[in-house]
Amino acid sequence: MEFSVQTSKKQEIIGITDEVSAIIRKSSIKNGLCNVFVRHATAALIINENADPNICIDFLNALNKAIPDHAGYLHDMVDNNAGAHMKAALIGPSETIPVKEGKLLLGKWQSIMLVELDGPRERNINVEIIKS
Amino acid sequence: MEFSVQTSKKQEIIGITDEVSAIIRKSSIKNGLCNVFVRHATAALIINENADPNICIDFLNALNKAIPDHAGYLHDMVDNNAGAHMKAALIGPSETIPVKEGKLLLGKWQSIMLVELDGPRERNINVEIIKS
Amino acid sequence: MEFSVQTSKKQEIIGITDEVSAIIRKSSIKNGLCNVFVRHATAALIINENADPNICIDFLNALNKAIPDHAGYLHDMVDNNAGAHMKAALIGPSETIPVKEGKLLLGKWQSIMLVELDGPRERNINVEIIKS
Repeated sequence: MEFSVQTSKKQEIIGITDEVSAIIRKSSIKNGLCNVFVRHATAALIINENADPNICIDFLNALNKAIPDHAGYLHDMVDNNAGAHMKAALIGPSETIPVKEGKLLLGKWQSIMLVELDGPRERNINVEIIKS
Repeated sequence: MEFSVQTSKKQEIIGITDEVSAIIRKSSIKNGLCNVFVRHATAALIINENADPNICIDFLNALNKAIPDHAGYLHDMVDNNAGAHMKAALIGPSETIPVKEGKLLLGKWQSIMLVELDGPRERNINVEIIKS
Repeated sequence: MEFSVQTSKKQEIIGITDEVSAIIRKSSIKNGLCNVFVRHATAALIINENADPNICIDFLNALNKAIPDHAGYLHDMVDNNAGAHMKAALIGPSETIPVKEGKLLLGKWQSIMLVELDGPRERNINVEIIKS
């Protein structure tokens, strides 16, 4: 099952736990694994807290310091978005989460989040659930 | 199946391959995938060598340089552990490993390790095994 | 199913989507999940664009700045490849990708790539496919 998210900024972190949970509910699968996969090379997925939305702002700042944009990248001469590719490659496009009794087995402070690194764009996210 | 690890330091890396292998043995599954998932937003999992325990010390040092603690994070005003969230989000909470003939198909120098980033705490780790 | 890749440089990024796709075709599985796992502690896997091969060069440069080699690591006194371990641990040894109608459900600009960090070596990569 696929769903899409329209982002509105150059860089942005958007919670998608509710969309993933709804797909699990619609499936008949009670126990197994849920793979969430963003089908783009300049976006990524993380799992962390977003009860305090400052964590999302902090994460983008920390990431931009560790992997700065426009640091002499060759791909910037082609597309000028090399930094977004670097960050997406390092974070990774997917998360695989256990499912128990029809629910994602996330910790209390864990949410699944889309990391937009070269928006605004429409991002397609696939959810695949496997029965254990 | 879930197990827990009591950490004893602020930052610490602890091998958990034996615990995961024991759960695979108890299951009747010979071939498939094993997902290991830590249910916390300030801890993470890695796979690497710990035959030389210095690698664990080196990894925490390298990580703290790439993503420094207390670098002006907004979440530090709420909880003072923003750096732990940043690092956990980047590393990720899970690993998915092939299982062959009842054993984890790790390389000779690969171990599964819990990365404690805001301890000491009790950390809950879920192991889900899917038959291929 | 396992295949191997012979790398030829100290650091190098090599596309392996074709090898993984061939293994999926040989299996009878049409829909599910495909786990790709490199069985080494100084190599890793990423998913990103390699249509512009500069992205691979840029990624290694960005990674070497974020996690520099020979930055006083203790493991360098044992093996002198600590930086490769640090980078491999952070990136991670595996990717899990949805399979739909017998094909990897990658985005248009996504390829699976082996990241060699301490070559040249022969690297063993396992592909495990689970039916949904």
